[in-house]
Parts: sequence; C-alpha cells; structure tokens
Amino acid sequence: MSEIVLHNYFRSSTAYRVRIALNLKGVGYEYVAHHLRHGGNRAPDYLAINPQGLVPAMVWSDGTVIAQSLAIMEFLNETVPEPPLLPADAMGRARVRMLSQMIACDIHPVNNLRILNALRSRYGADDTEIADWFRHWVNETFQPLEKILSQSPETGSFCHGDTPGMADICIVAQVANNARFNVDMTPYPTICRIRDACMQLPAFADAAPARQPDAE
Amino acid sequence: MSEIVLHNYFRSSTAYRVRIALNLKGVGYEYVAHHLRHGGNRAPDYLAINPQGLVPAMVWSDGTVIAQSLAIMEFLNETVPEPPLLPADAMGRARVRMLSQMIACDIHPVNNLRILNALRSRYGADDTEIADWFRHWVNETFQPLEKILSQSPETGSFCHGDTPGMADICIVAQVANNARFNVDMTPYPTICRIRDACMQLPAFADAAPARQPDAE
Repeated sequence: MSEIVLHNYFRSSTAYRVRIALNLKGVGYEYVAHHLRHGGNRAPDYLAINPQGLVPAMVWSDGTVIAQSLAIMEFLNETVPEPPLLPADAMGRARVRMLSQMIACDIHPVNNLRILNALRSRYGADDTEIADWFRHWVNETFQPLEKILSQSPETGSFCHGDTPGMADICIVAQVANNARFNVDMTPYPTICRIRDACMQLPAFADAAPARQPDAE
Repeated sequence: MSEIVLHNYFRSSTAYRVRIALNLKGVGYEYVAHHLRHGGNRAPDYLAINPQGLVPAMVWSDGTVIAQSLAIMEFLNETVPEPPLLPADAMGRARVRMLSQMIACDIHPVNNLRILNALRSRYGADDTEIADWFRHWVNETFQPLEKILSQSPETGSFCHGDTPGMADICIVAQVANNARFNVDMTPYPTICRIRDACMQLPAFADAAPARQPDAE
C-alpha cells in the first residue's frame, strides 16, 4: 500500500496534472476515485478530507491534506526536487508559473463541470451553447499562449527549455479536455508540438484519463 | 521615475493583490492605469506588453514582463525575500498556496468582469442574476475556506500564523469585490477577522481601490 493517496477522477484535468507530476517525480500513490458526475466528491467522508469537495486532494505520508493542483505540484517540487518542474532561475520560474496560471486560472475554472452545469440549470444552455462557451474561453487564452510560446527565446522542445515542467503539464491536461469539445487546434502549432513531445514520455502517457482505473 | 511598472486598474482584484505585495515588500513602482470597462487593456500597445490583455502585468527593472498575479507574487517573494509572503516550511507553503488558489482559481476567474459580461450578452442576465451568480461562487468557496481557517491550528492573527502573506492578500482583494455585490459576510467570522487585521496595516490600506490614481 502506498503512503501517499491521491483523491482522483479520471477525467478531471486538475487531477491529471497531479498524476503527471507524481509520475515525473517517480512518486507512487494510491488512487482513490470519486465520480464527479455522480456527486461522489460531495460525500461526507470526502468533505471531511477536503472541505472544498473538489479533486484532486493529496494526502501526504504524514496525513496532511493538500488540495489545489498547483499547490500540490509546488509542494512535490520542493519535497522531491528531481527532476525539477520549475526552472533554476527566478525569472524562469515566473515565466513557467505565468504560463501555468494562464491555463489554471483563466481557462480551466470557467470551463469546469460545475460552471457548465450552472449554465445549463440557470440559463438552459444546450450542448451546442456549452461547447461554444468552452471553446471561447480556450481560444481567449490559447491565442496569447501560442503567441508567447512561439515568440519567446526561452521556449524549447517544451515550454521552457528542453525539459518538461509545470506549464507543459497544464497544457497536456487542457488539450485533453479540449478534444472533448472539438476545439480546433490548427491555430496553435507550438502548443501542439509541445503537447506531442510530452505524450512521448511515459510519465505523461501513463497519467492520461483513459488509462486510469475509473475510466469509462 | 520608478524602475518597476505595474499595469493596473484600480478595481481589479488581481492588480490589488500585487499592489499589496509590492507595498509589503517596500518596492516602489510606477502605476499605469488601463480602464478595463472601456477596453483600455485591449489597446495594441498594451497587447504588445501583455498578449493576454489582462491586468496586472509587472514590467521588472530589466524590462521583463510578468503577468498573472500569483506568479508575480511568487517572483517578488523570491527576489525581495523580506518580509516573506510564504511560510518557511514546505507544508506551510503548500497550505498558504492552497488557500490562495481557492480564491485565485475557484472564485475570481468565474466572477471576473469578462465572465459577467458574457452572461449578459449570451444569456441576457440582468443585474439581479449577475449578483446571484457572483455570490453563489463566493459562497461555494468561502464556506470551506472559513471551515479550514477556523479549525486549523496553523491559523493565527492571519491565515498562517501572525504575519500576513499571500493568502491574506487574496482574501482582502476578494472581500473588496464581495462588497460590490452585497455578499453577506456574517457566515465568515474568521475570514472577516483576518481581513480586518490586514486592513490595519498601511501596506493593505494604501493598496485599496479607492486610493488609486484612477479611482472613480
């Protein structure tokens, strides 16, 4: 039995981020699935672990619970330094955190299941409108993200140089979500190139939703 | 003239966070205002600085641009270590980042001006519906945030011990936004206590929207 538990849902892109980070760090973990669409994350025993009732939440070896995927990745990076998920210099770290947060703050939260459900229940949004909403907010951020990545000398095989890190993790998880809503990726060749480079690595490929125990 | 420029809007709660952080660190800066409601952030000369067209963006003394408020605060904290915005231990840092991201990922983005405008234009949402949307997502996160803060032994005068940091900054900026939508704060005594403690400090008080040069 693993010491570390990751509360999970195969399709959650924020849980997907943490699965990749754990794989890159070579940290084994116990996978505990919560079915978000069936409200498994709102069960009292899970709320006792994570009062926010969202996945992912990581229970560290000392019993401490950490929620929020970026906070978990920063913690893993500080606790298990190799391989690093952030550059060695402060300005590089700022750039990678900025790229990560463009996705983690400006795309994912506004396209999350709870928001899409609210658009359905409050405004009667149908599948076509939901898909249009999703694609709109992806494009609003992927356009500047593509511009920054394609024009910046810091961009290499991955978002920052030639080793994968936090921003690459966020891209891979977001692109997986995009596919479910048929986002046209042709305007984003740099993002696609980086995503494809990541998927060649077992740490990324093994974390994919379809390979998880609760995949449907 | 200051070496550091902060692209700003008085009412932006993400810019507000960075203003507090700069004040706490004692770092002077030039304030450049962009009127979000008039689309000043979409002007070509600003998009050349920050392709995402959002505030805040900080131009550091070497000319490098950093966007995304949490990335800016992490950079400031690494570059100007005193006083620290994060605890000295990894688990403490994880906790403060988690608390910060609960607000920065799960409240602010879904209640941002661009989202509220989209609800109006796509679904004809009126002021009453907009306010209800805003309050709903605040309460969804403030309920677990209050629970964590009120029950955790790490909570002190501020979110983590007795010195203010990144999570306190996020709380103060969010509570200022809440007031514009009449969020009932009575269920959140711990959040209110921490917010009030922060507002006693000049670094927080001087960063308030009403005290900025572009305040209306």
